[in-house]
Amino acid sequence: MRKLAVLTGGGDCPGLNAVIRAVVKAAYHHKIEVLGIRDGFRGAVEGEFMPLGLSDVSGILPRGGTILGTTNRDNPFAYEMKLNGLTQVVDRSDDVLRNLRERGVDALLAIGGDGSLNIALKLADKGLKVIGIPKTIDNDLMATDQTFGFQTAVDTAQDALDRLHTTAESHHRVMILEVMGRYAGWIALYAGVAGGADVILIPEIPYNIDRVALAIQQRANQGKKFSIIVVAEGAKPLGGEMVVERLVSGRFDPLKLGGIGAKLGNDLEEQCGMETRVTVLGHLQRGGSPDAYDRVLSSRYGVAAVEAALDGEFGVMVALHGRDIVRVPLIQAVDRLKLVPLNDPLLLAARELGIEMGD
Amino acid sequence: MRKLAVLTGGGDCPGLNAVIRAVVKAAYHHKIEVLGIRDGFRGAVEGEFMPLGLSDVSGILPRGGTILGTTNRDNPFAYEMKLNGLTQVVDRSDDVLRNLRERGVDALLAIGGDGSLNIALKLADKGLKVIGIPKTIDNDLMATDQTFGFQTAVDTAQDALDRLHTTAESHHRVMILEVMGRYAGWIALYAGVAGGADVILIPEIPYNIDRVALAIQQRANQGKKFSIIVVAEGAKPLGGEMVVERLVSGRFDPLKLGGIGAKLGNDLEEQCGMETRVTVLGHLQRGGSPDAYDRVLSSRYGVAAVEAALDGEFGVMVALHGRDIVRVPLIQAVDRLKLVPLNDPLLLAARELGIEMGD
Amino acid sequence: MRKLAVLTGGGDCPGLNAVIRAVVKAAYHHKIEVLGIRDGFRGAVEGEFMPLGLSDVSGILPRGGTILGTTNRDNPFAYEMKLNGLTQVVDRSDDVLRNLRERGVDALLAIGGDGSLNIALKLADKGLKVIGIPKTIDNDLMATDQTFGFQTAVDTAQDALDRLHTTAESHHRVMILEVMGRYAGWIALYAGVAGGADVILIPEIPYNIDRVALAIQQRANQGKKFSIIVVAEGAKPLGGEMVVERLVSGRFDPLKLGGIGAKLGNDLEEQCGMETRVTVLGHLQRGGSPDAYDRVLSSRYGVAAVEAALDGEFGVMVALHGRDIVRVPLIQAVDRLKLVPLNDPLLLAARELGIEMGD
Amino acid sequence: MRKLAVLTGGGDCPGLNAVIRAVVKAAYHHKIEVLGIRDGFRGAVEGEFMPLGLSDVSGILPRGGTILGTTNRDNPFAYEMKLNGLTQVVDRSDDVLRNLRERGVDALLAIGGDGSLNIALKLADKGLKVIGIPKTIDNDLMATDQTFGFQTAVDTAQDALDRLHTTAESHHRVMILEVMGRYAGWIALYAGVAGGADVILIPEIPYNIDRVALAIQQRANQGKKFSIIVVAEGAKPLGGEMVVERLVSGRFDPLKLGGIGAKLGNDLEEQCGMETRVTVLGHLQRGGSPDAYDRVLSSRYGVAAVEAALDGEFGVMVALHGRDIVRVPLIQAVDRLKLVPLNDPLLLAARELGIEMGD
Repeated sequence: MRKLAVLTGGGDCPGLNAVIRAVVKAAYHHKIEVLGIRDGFRGAVEGEFMPLGLSDVSGILPRGGTILGTTNRDNPFAYEMKLNGLTQVVDRSDDVLRNLRERGVDALLAIGGDGSLNIALKLADKGLKVIGIPKTIDNDLMATDQTFGFQTAVDTAQDALDRLHTTAESHHRVMILEVMGRYAGWIALYAGVAGGADVILIPEIPYNIDRVALAIQQRANQGKKFSIIVVAEGAKPLGGEMVVERLVSGRFDPLKLGGIGAKLGNDLEEQCGMETRVTVLGHLQRGGSPDAYDRVLSSRYGVAAVEAALDGEFGVMVALHGRDIVRVPLIQAVDRLKLVPLNDPLLLAARELGIEMGD
Repeated sequence: MRKLAVLTGGGDCPGLNAVIRAVVKAAYHHKIEVLGIRDGFRGAVEGEFMPLGLSDVSGILPRGGTILGTTNRDNPFAYEMKLNGLTQVVDRSDDVLRNLRERGVDALLAIGGDGSLNIALKLADKGLKVIGIPKTIDNDLMATDQTFGFQTAVDTAQDALDRLHTTAESHHRVMILEVMGRYAGWIALYAGVAGGADVILIPEIPYNIDRVALAIQQRANQGKKFSIIVVAEGAKPLGGEMVVERLVSGRFDPLKLGGIGAKLGNDLEEQCGMETRVTVLGHLQRGGSPDAYDRVLSSRYGVAAVEAALDGEFGVMVALHGRDIVRVPLIQAVDRLKLVPLNDPLLLAARELGIEMGD
Repeated sequence: MRKLAVLTGGGDCPGLNAVIRAVVKAAYHHKIEVLGIRDGFRGAVEGEFMPLGLSDVSGILPRGGTILGTTNRDNPFAYEMKLNGLTQVVDRSDDVLRNLRERGVDALLAIGGDGSLNIALKLADKGLKVIGIPKTIDNDLMATDQTFGFQTAVDTAQDALDRLHTTAESHHRVMILEVMGRYAGWIALYAGVAGGADVILIPEIPYNIDRVALAIQQRANQGKKFSIIVVAEGAKPLGGEMVVERLVSGRFDPLKLGGIGAKLGNDLEEQCGMETRVTVLGHLQRGGSPDAYDRVLSSRYGVAAVEAALDGEFGVMVALHGRDIVRVPLIQAVDRLKLVPLNDPLLLAARELGIEMGD
Repeated sequence: MRKLAVLTGGGDCPGLNAVIRAVVKAAYHHKIEVLGIRDGFRGAVEGEFMPLGLSDVSGILPRGGTILGTTNRDNPFAYEMKLNGLTQVVDRSDDVLRNLRERGVDALLAIGGDGSLNIALKLADKGLKVIGIPKTIDNDLMATDQTFGFQTAVDTAQDALDRLHTTAESHHRVMILEVMGRYAGWIALYAGVAGGADVILIPEIPYNIDRVALAIQQRANQGKKFSIIVVAEGAKPLGGEMVVERLVSGRFDPLKLGGIGAKLGNDLEEQCGMETRVTVLGHLQRGGSPDAYDRVLSSRYGVAAVEAALDGEFGVMVALHGRDIVRVPLIQAVDRLKLVPLNDPLLLAARELGIEMGD
């Protein structure tokens, strides 16, 4: 093991730089060279590399984003290119292998979520030595207890709930916070408990609007003339058609044009007659400095990935199991998404706290 | 001077509790009683009062919201009531005067923005002894250098810009943050400078979309493949019809259904071909703990209002002039809104920093 | 199970209020009454109780401290009393049992660390139905993966390191941060990794001052003219006499009069000739709003304690094992302190990151 | 005006990078070159310069510290040098002038406090074109309403007070926070009001320990079994000898070895019998990201300094007067320190709030 390459793929996530720094520091410790690949798999295809030494990663631990750049589109197996003025989709995975081979790279560390790790797995199938590092603020990746970036996203959402709380109470309003989570409700669940939400709606539990309205009404009857609702962007009403599809026009993020939060607010105003306000947290969840938890987790992942490379164990992802970092087959990570199970201990605790889950 | 009443009117604003606390503490110091009025002018009409002693304001300095409650609707001069099943609008200003008189209140301290202070002024015209305290996150109140709540709103917007910055840079994107400011661009201007925005668009300067696109293009030409734009909710394109009116349906806040930020994002994607993302900060700007600056300013306003009462000077608003708190006639405060003048020193400095203002 | 009592014992810790709130909410859910005991075991001896309903815990989730009050001195088994003008130490544990019995309390939930849980265990031996909830910012309690309050303390220490970092770098200095941890180095280890420390010194690994000086020297040789050191208050030099004992005079916290941080700074200035500055974080680690992680953990502990009571399982402590909350015999928790083992995975990772541990 | 040089002198201060960035951006706008000088006046003497372009200042706005480095010792007029193995003090101010002249620098922008601006003034007397920019967290510089860095230091101290508050209240303790301010009590005064302190002790008002004890006692009598005290490091008891001198040994910062905070704590424990805890905030006040207020102020100062250079106005300092940035003769700034006057409006307001000032 003499040379590693590292790339960051997919959407922004707090802790990317912390992983890169840990990879470089641990590699330095073991006298291994590191090459950074620019802009995720695009740089791997196009051959854009940069050497990464200690001075390149100095001071980046607290910074959001990634010094390597990233995209959440370019897939070497279906790479968009302009050929003769036309956009074509081409398999350029061989270019990735060739670029790495030509630079003497022994193994690739791919920091990414579902999408990037799937690509990594397919490259592994073609013979590349690959190690995955689990990244997503949504925490919906299988085979690891937690991805880095999630805890910081929860902090951000909880901070937003703290802010909305005082306004809700002073103005006797229903305040709705729409958080990320297209398929899995982890951010909504954790931030909702941490932020003292009265109602938490997640994609895994289609919600009954009458139950939600009843919970708000019961609070009002107890003299609590306000309520706080956290709703995951992927939550949906029982049997209901999705508002998101209806409103989306063009390339914009559906959230911005009024997603489930807006629909929920409208429906509740009609049913409860209480003033309702909706805030869509959006990209604020992806940026900013990683919190201490994520800096530790990211650093551990980076170190563990280098160790796996040293041990010659490839086609795996480093993963958190309890208090340990272990290695799991990449295939397990990308097999399917990790949804909130109905017997999740925090979900059950939320119910005991009297939080309405919409069912 | 033996008894003061205090109320908080209008939208939520960091520092309301700090003012209430300062009023009660300064009044205690001068052996004056304080009555709190619940829910702004609604409580003044309906006669809902609560005595406020030192123990009632203990620990509230850092808390957002108002322990008195507030509304931004009820106007004693045009008070909505259900009479015989019909909603009627009635002048109940006499009830306010009677309620205060019956409880032996010598003067009313009204903490509020444009709307609440206008009501206070009309009550003063009817003979009530009134002192105003300038509150609005928008900082668009005349006759004072700064309202409390503004600096904290700027902090919140700046923090959001910091978060968006790393994502923009890592993903080579244009990130747009829509902040409050229907008529005045103060939050956008201050947060934009503090957050290192490349473009700031405010209601006072109708923007030329071509100028904005050019600024982004020029950055790209210099190798900066990302840009940060702050846009006040009330900003508008040169000669353009406003998207806000077009999209609003029903009672929801226009911001939530895609205001100027969404339009701007759409237009820029078309013109520049760069990926654009919009975040609407919304109510997050109104809540949360006031920062040190606003806690000091709020405390000074509260003390100064009690002093004005002691001096028997009514029909005035306490105001910040330079480093001093002075008293100005209420009429000056509500005469018209304080917009960003084209020769505002920070606006001129922003231009020197190379920030594109859209004109 | 009809009535529970709850008390908070020992030093301040972020999350106390979150546990109390969860206990009350979960008890309400199961139609159980809750009595709060004032000021830890003092109130249990003196019979100072207060009923706790939903309204008493409304809004306390984000607040530091404890609404019940606490002391870290009063032990019912060795209770200091003034009798005939003399201070005597008396066993008043029977008063605790009687007070609880007279109020119809079925079981006691004791939120505390080592000391309080030891008392709880001895009360259990006398027949009291007791359930412990593990609290300490130091995280040095056996039988649980993590205590609540620890993560927030780590956040605080990491934030301090971030601040010191820029000063160290700009001024070419060695900055030392002394954090809590008399016996165990958990805060130093986690905050040190999260804050990018170059040296971490913990009580479990007596440090060789020459190794520390060498690490700083090597950085200087690489052009890094600054270093960041985190030292736990209980760290000690190899074979060295402890400075703390020497400096302490009277009742003051040793930290304040110059503990190990000051000694280390002095020694390093002599050995390296670099300017060194010491900051003692002290009580800032104990206060403030709990972070999202601790709010979730505290809430889960509170719910789990009520569930244990409902299941009739006493003499236990609720504990985090991996992702689950389990019940462990109280005796396991107070048997001995949980120190950082030499094969702790984060300790090993820290070494791989090139962090000097002083050995 | 074709080329400017800029340096940062003295202790660390949030906003240094923001000023540098603004200087470079405004200079770019006016097609002026900028040279950065490394490590304050040391680099000016030694001739260590670096060109500063837009890319050098990209992303530094939110960062603490200074990319130029700084020292708070090197004075060109009394420069320490090793000559023949002996340390000698030499006047090397001519080297500064020569170095700047040789590089074609038209004027020097000196960002610093009292010390650095004094040096700048003496260089101006020798014919150098100099413009000063007022930096100090202590805010004790004459001729400007506010220095940059002060507001952020107040934020940090206020945050510490918020943390100590909950512990004080839960544990019925007196918590003392020692903040910076050797000669002037600005940080203590502003942070004390913002953090809800019960007692504020500043250097300008020698304190009577009996008054402080009485204030704490009166609170206890009202059922407030805790108190919060902010003390500036330079505060001193009436007629008392200073503890600082007594305890200092060697090169360490006196604060760290128990300064006025420790003495005060000891004295109060003896007089009141209440448990007292002392926290010394120290260097945490100097580091970290500048807040929005300081980023705006720093940016304005940077722009204004470039404008002054363009206008050919030298020997001046840019200063905040009310809402405007003006130019004042450098001599006014360094004439003497700006202490808190006894009729300072915030000091008077603090008294009205019932805060004990110790006199």
